[in-house]
Amino acid sequence: MKRSERLVDMTKYLMERPHNLISLPFFATRYGAAKSSISEDLTILKHTLADNQDGILETVAGAAGGVRYIPFWGKKNVTQYLQDLAKRIESSERILAGGFVYLSDILGNPQDLDKIGKIIATRYAYSNIDVVMTIETKGISLAQAVARYLNVPFITARKRSKVTEGATVSVNYISSSLDRVSKMELPTRALKENSNVLLVDDFMMAGGTLTGMRQLVKEFNSNIAGICVLCEADFDDEKVIEGHLSLIRIKDVNDKQKIIVAEPGTLLGHTNFNRF
Amino acid sequence: MKRSERLVDMTKYLMERPHNLISLPFFATRYGAAKSSISEDLTILKHTLADNQDGILETVAGAAGGVRYIPFWGKKNVTQYLQDLAKRIESSERILAGGFVYLSDILGNPQDLDKIGKIIATRYAYSNIDVVMTIETKGISLAQAVARYLNVPFITARKRSKVTEGATVSVNYISSSLDRVSKMELPTRALKENSNVLLVDDFMMAGGTLTGMRQLVKEFNSNIAGICVLCEADFDDEKVIEGHLSLIRIKDVNDKQKIIVAEPGTLLGHTNFNRF
Repeated sequence: MKRSERLVDMTKYLMERPHNLISLPFFATRYGAAKSSISEDLTILKHTLADNQDGILETVAGAAGGVRYIPFWGKKNVTQYLQDLAKRIESSERILAGGFVYLSDILGNPQDLDKIGKIIATRYAYSNIDVVMTIETKGISLAQAVARYLNVPFITARKRSKVTEGATVSVNYISSSLDRVSKMELPTRALKENSNVLLVDDFMMAGGTLTGMRQLVKEFNSNIAGICVLCEADFDDEKVIEGHLSLIRIKDVNDKQKIIVAEPGTLLGHTNFNRF
Repeated sequence: MKRSERLVDMTKYLMERPHNLISLPFFATRYGAAKSSISEDLTILKHTLADNQDGILETVAGAAGGVRYIPFWGKKNVTQYLQDLAKRIESSERILAGGFVYLSDILGNPQDLDKIGKIIATRYAYSNIDVVMTIETKGISLAQAVARYLNVPFITARKRSKVTEGATVSVNYISSSLDRVSKMELPTRALKENSNVLLVDDFMMAGGTLTGMRQLVKEFNSNIAGICVLCEADFDDEKVIEGHLSLIRIKDVNDKQKIIVAEPGTLLGHTNFNRF
């Protein structure tokens, strides 16, 4: 196989398996090529990704070594996308009762999910995440988008028991937006002990739901490695959670004047984005 | 930019935008290269994808022409994956009460979702799908995986009204597994009139839920372009729906003997998979 064909296949192969370590001998056998040729191919691939600030090809030396494709978006790309997203979120047609914002179109758009997933996966690329967790319903697409780029499973806490999930563990939490005690649960087989869990959700007001998820993770003797939301309502002062990051900060939702004010959130400050 | 670098970037660019028509002048400008060189690059890309039965690069001639990457998996790949998946589903630990089967691990695994999404997107690659639709909760990851490869939005019908979605249209349907009348709804702004809708769901017993979704699509004056489920329970004889396809057919779930019998479903028979 020629270099040109190898490069097409190799790019596709690596992109479909983010974070997986692929050995040089594997590629050498796949293409019937010398290891030195494969090394040269990988150098080309690495530099092309780096030039676009769109992906890292990591080389792991030694007998058990190989290469690993890390989805990674540079600060320039991320800033531009988040500013554009904030502007789209400011459309007054998105205003819903109770200070909520209509986001279902964004959470169902594969091009947006692709970018949002890549951004969050960049932030947690080196956090040894074992599993991404969210709560039904609207957090699911977000969790899936992130999980794809980290190449780890994702799990969904549910607000109601289903016979189709078997035995569950449940916790009670105070849902601040509804101002009442709610229940959420997770199948016992969904999460192994000592897992490193990344919590994601679509929208955060005071953070009551995230508190519930954190408690649920503790019940499984697992560890929270990070908390990240798509939108954070900054006008809700009574936050019950700390240490979370947001892609978008919503500073005001004024139903009467039909105004939403949104801007890039706290995630953008993280040093991972400066790596290029 | 050299050919080798162009090929890496081009492969990545096209893979991130399935079904989108990209013009030759766009690539010529992006790489500062002659159109004739770009044409040669695309020929290499096309043949490499075809050799693996893993994607079609379609050339559209004329002034408004260009190329389009169609995710497409050949019959050999699909058969092998579905046989393997059927075997995994036959694990007796998956048996739940009521003839249900635990599938949450598969529906939360990015590598499985990737393949399942690619298979369904291959079947409907030329069906002019405008939107993929499912119902909460477990169908969502399936819908997202398919929508990504068709590069169209996906929408989620809900069983309960939420303030965070605004005005909705609702229908009643008979849920056969629960044997009672249920309600599902969709935000009015989620679906445009005259859309071509692909319905997907994780598990089908008699098909009551799909009947509800079909009715909901009609309320939006839209058209069903296809119905596809991950698993179909073949032991439920009283089907209330026709014309659906399944990836996996579950022939028996025996709780006492702890046996599940599963095999590749009806989708595999479709001619699209023979294209290579």
